[in-house]
Amino acid sequence: MKIGIVGLGLMGGSMALELKAQGFATKTIGVDLNPKNAEKALLLGLVDSIEALNQACAEADIIVIATPVQSISKLLPLVLDHLRPGAVVTDVGSTKKHISDSVRGHPKRKQYVSSHPMAGTEHSGPEAAHLGLFTGKAAVICDEEMSSPDAVQTIRKLYEALQMRLIQMESSAHDLHAAYVSHLSHISSFVLANTVLDKEKDVDAIFNLASGGFESTVRLAKSSPQMWTEVFEQNTAFVTEALGAYIDRLRKFHDSLKANNFSQTRTYIEQANEIKRVLENLTPSGKKQ
Amino acid sequence: MKIGIVGLGLMGGSMALELKAQGFATKTIGVDLNPKNAEKALLLGLVDSIEALNQACAEADIIVIATPVQSISKLLPLVLDHLRPGAVVTDVGSTKKHISDSVRGHPKRKQYVSSHPMAGTEHSGPEAAHLGLFTGKAAVICDEEMSSPDAVQTIRKLYEALQMRLIQMESSAHDLHAAYVSHLSHISSFVLANTVLDKEKDVDAIFNLASGGFESTVRLAKSSPQMWTEVFEQNTAFVTEALGAYIDRLRKFHDSLKANNFSQTRTYIEQANEIKRVLENLTPSGKKQ
Repeated sequence: MKIGIVGLGLMGGSMALELKAQGFATKTIGVDLNPKNAEKALLLGLVDSIEALNQACAEADIIVIATPVQSISKLLPLVLDHLRPGAVVTDVGSTKKHISDSVRGHPKRKQYVSSHPMAGTEHSGPEAAHLGLFTGKAAVICDEEMSSPDAVQTIRKLYEALQMRLIQMESSAHDLHAAYVSHLSHISSFVLANTVLDKEKDVDAIFNLASGGFESTVRLAKSSPQMWTEVFEQNTAFVTEALGAYIDRLRKFHDSLKANNFSQTRTYIEQANEIKRVLENLTPSGKKQ
Repeated sequence: MKIGIVGLGLMGGSMALELKAQGFATKTIGVDLNPKNAEKALLLGLVDSIEALNQACAEADIIVIATPVQSISKLLPLVLDHLRPGAVVTDVGSTKKHISDSVRGHPKRKQYVSSHPMAGTEHSGPEAAHLGLFTGKAAVICDEEMSSPDAVQTIRKLYEALQMRLIQMESSAHDLHAAYVSHLSHISSFVLANTVLDKEKDVDAIFNLASGGFESTVRLAKSSPQMWTEVFEQNTAFVTEALGAYIDRLRKFHDSLKANNFSQTRTYIEQANEIKRVLENLTPSGKKQ
């Protein structure tokens, strides 16, 4: 199969590499609006060729859009317009409802399959691409009934080639769960970094005292501003809800400290320990055992 | 040197192992009020013998107290009472002012050196002990002027044997910085776990969508309730301040989302990215490069 990848950053670049390595792709065609990114991706051997979007659409059996989510919403209708009969387009965006809405009523809607591989790191760009990023992680396919069964089957096979676990979900349900399980983690990390940087004007103090615990909690604070701003823009309602719930619970924790009610503080921590049950089923790389 | 370790969990057990492995300790004497822990530590080979506290004090050249911080404040005056002339006691507690105050005016105060090796994991108990926990990380020595120069020298050598970077700090300054850089990370993680567990009654939904990002952000939520409640109890004022600052900043982030002011949201994320400068100087294990 010929695979066109639009957006050659961490996600798109890693997918191109892996699909070629697994023998799923016979040719990988890269598309990137940023000529520097495109050149880097070619130099790094992430893709076999660089082409314009309409060329890639004319040639590919599958197009994967892997740009930030606002661009996905803009590019997806264009890609569908130019897609060959029988070809399929998917996207790897962290939000699903807004993107899906961008092609509601499109005459070729059935050739689009909405998906979200739940993988990533805090790094971005073609240099961040690597083999193994997707292995063992979950890939969500949304609103299957809106796509043709053949198109769904094609995208399922693509994720199976990436050795991912497949999950089905309605796009709104995806966006709600992702707000709590993924988007909120990023905000907690961004704002933790802000709080500490604001207090510790002298970065040396942070550096001297920072240990592995701090590092793992703020790791996500290194994530791309463009990518995440667009995610929050497309999933505002659910992210606002999740962040509101987080702030409410932090206030209760704060109240327990201010009241010196440490048995209450302890209860909150014991409740938090319940997360062990979830994490025990994940390996350090987020993989199911 | 004969080293007595009081409290044979992650910290005490790892220190006993490492000091023996590095040849700094000729004998390691374990003390644990919990007979099961003591037995486990002996079976796991963490210490050479298990003795009662007063026996250990009569025999050891250095006593290291590695229990939760409220116990340290209670045990430290007792240990000083029984300490041989020329012997030294230190503690590895995550708070320093409260513990230091517990021996203010003690006739043998100069034989105590206040310290905090900035190392740890979310695991606890003797089974969690391992070699390499301290390597390359920071050890803070507080209020050096309150200890005899010989005692300080002895404890410096102990941390050098653990291959740690030494830092000096006043105990209140330590507690303030630790509140932001360590204690707050734990609260952000505890409460993130609570928020997600509360929303996602069905743990499967979390499991299915959780990826590496979520896992690293909530890793600390697995930490010991007893240990951390006691830290928050001893460092209430600074932790309350740090958590208040975190909540204020989260509210501002929340406001930017509610107002659809995404250029503001993006600015917050760009500011958070500044944390890269700090983290670039730390290896994945929190070690200075």
